[in-house]
Amino acid sequence: MAPFGGLSAFPVTPSDADGRVDTDRMGALVARLACTGLASIGVMGSTGGYPYFSVGERARAIAASVEAAGDVPVVAGIGALTTGEVLAHARAARDAGAQGLLLAPMSYLPLRDAEVLGLFREVAAATDLPICVYNNPITTHFDISNDLLTALAGIDRVDAVKNPAAAAEDCAEQMAVLRRRVPTGFSLGYSGDALIANALGAGADGWYSVLAGVLPAPCLALWAARGDAVERMVLNARLGPVWEVCRAFGGIRVAYEIASRLGFGRIDLPRPLLPLTRDEVARVEAALIASDLPLDAAP
Amino acid sequence: MAPFGGLSAFPVTPSDADGRVDTDRMGALVARLACTGLASIGVMGSTGGYPYFSVGERARAIAASVEAAGDVPVVAGIGALTTGEVLAHARAARDAGAQGLLLAPMSYLPLRDAEVLGLFREVAAATDLPICVYNNPITTHFDISNDLLTALAGIDRVDAVKNPAAAAEDCAEQMAVLRRRVPTGFSLGYSGDALIANALGAGADGWYSVLAGVLPAPCLALWAARGDAVERMVLNARLGPVWEVCRAFGGIRVAYEIASRLGFGRIDLPRPLLPLTRDEVARVEAALIASDLPLDAAP
Repeated sequence: MAPFGGLSAFPVTPSDADGRVDTDRMGALVARLACTGLASIGVMGSTGGYPYFSVGERARAIAASVEAAGDVPVVAGIGALTTGEVLAHARAARDAGAQGLLLAPMSYLPLRDAEVLGLFREVAAATDLPICVYNNPITTHFDISNDLLTALAGIDRVDAVKNPAAAAEDCAEQMAVLRRRVPTGFSLGYSGDALIANALGAGADGWYSVLAGVLPAPCLALWAARGDAVERMVLNARLGPVWEVCRAFGGIRVAYEIASRLGFGRIDLPRPLLPLTRDEVARVEAALIASDLPLDAAP
Repeated sequence: MAPFGGLSAFPVTPSDADGRVDTDRMGALVARLACTGLASIGVMGSTGGYPYFSVGERARAIAASVEAAGDVPVVAGIGALTTGEVLAHARAARDAGAQGLLLAPMSYLPLRDAEVLGLFREVAAATDLPICVYNNPITTHFDISNDLLTALAGIDRVDAVKNPAAAAEDCAEQMAVLRRRVPTGFSLGYSGDALIANALGAGADGWYSVLAGVLPAPCLALWAARGDAVERMVLNARLGPVWEVCRAFGGIRVAYEIASRLGFGRIDLPRPLLPLTRDEVARVEAALIASDLPLDAAP
């Protein structure tokens, strides 16, 4: 099911105040990840702030990442508000060397199922890259139901889903339902680091991780322990303080704060988004220490 | 409080499959509105699909509308996901002849109050046009609280709000609270046609209307009757069937269907958004007849 499945890390995107990507620092962040054993690197995902960048800037970020990633496949976010823009992003991502596409149904006016189905059909017909359905209702404001996902999985080249992790029993039930309805080999993956252990325990094929984009080691350890209930619970519990600040402030905001302490200089999301406050940063620092993740030991 | 306050009509935006605005038809739609006695015309609002168009295309639509509107002021939507894009839209709208700016805090990652306040401060400092705070939680996914609105109203050039109409008692209570907290002359306006009678009854300074963009006459009558409780309720009740399909399908989708029957050819929102289904169109047609609004009598 490559390039989807396994542990995929989503790096942040360094950029300037004019919305221009700093490709040197982007490459450095990706090179740091590429040597760790990750299954893929997800560039211009929500963590990378894809909706805030133009077609040209996303393509520059993807090209720099592909070069830095070596043999590790790069998957790229192509979501946008109009079909025309999505198609342009899909072409540009392909040309920049991406090996897979992540497509979230971004919305302003609320979308209907038939509209999302039509979008995926049109994009899949226009590319030769595999596509992952990127279901992130908190940011897209559209919830992909199991019925719609089943229809999407019937489209050629739509090979995977990235669903939000939930309570353990909900993940297990959803996965059991979907396994019966999607084609064999369709990759059922999850995101939402704070709840990911539930999806791992239920047998998820992939983990699309924000934290792994800045701190891959503890995520690789948790992924490796996914089949061992006791070890998985211990490693997840150790990350509890980090998951707590992710829940409180948003995992992506926490990731930009951590990214700014990796030795590549300050990295912020585009304005109007602001960095965490000083008190919030202190809580993030405390959480990292409590989870045995001092930043000077970051791999 | 000009250009804000009174009845403002929001026309749809005719465009082609490549996202290019048809300025001839845009002008024709606006000219048809300009002679009716409206207080202003809101171009590239949510009804106009502002988030789906580039800086250049929005500016073309605004310029064509300003030309067609004659003495009627044009206010223009400048919302976008990044501060840089909002500033570019503000400059382009000013250059195209807009007399007021509508700014909605569009979001992908959930925004915080401090971020929205920072955005409005930066935009207000960069323009000499008056700004209306465009509060539309259904589309922007950010709800502007009374506390935040009070802070925004303290910024020079932030002169108005467009809040969502609600139940009668909620509108009245919100308006009473806000009147005490915002500067004298700050315009408290509402949108959400199906519930607008509640806001009119509570003394709203303005009505930002989707329906008036395609059918101004019944909206002008309802606005004129706002101080007469019986007449207002009768006119509003007569529009009940139209409000019902607006609630069921979204007022903006209904507006595009009605706009396509005004004699200017088919007008649709950009894909992936699709027109209403045949059954839904039949319900819209029935609602118009039941509300005594046959389209051949449209002004």
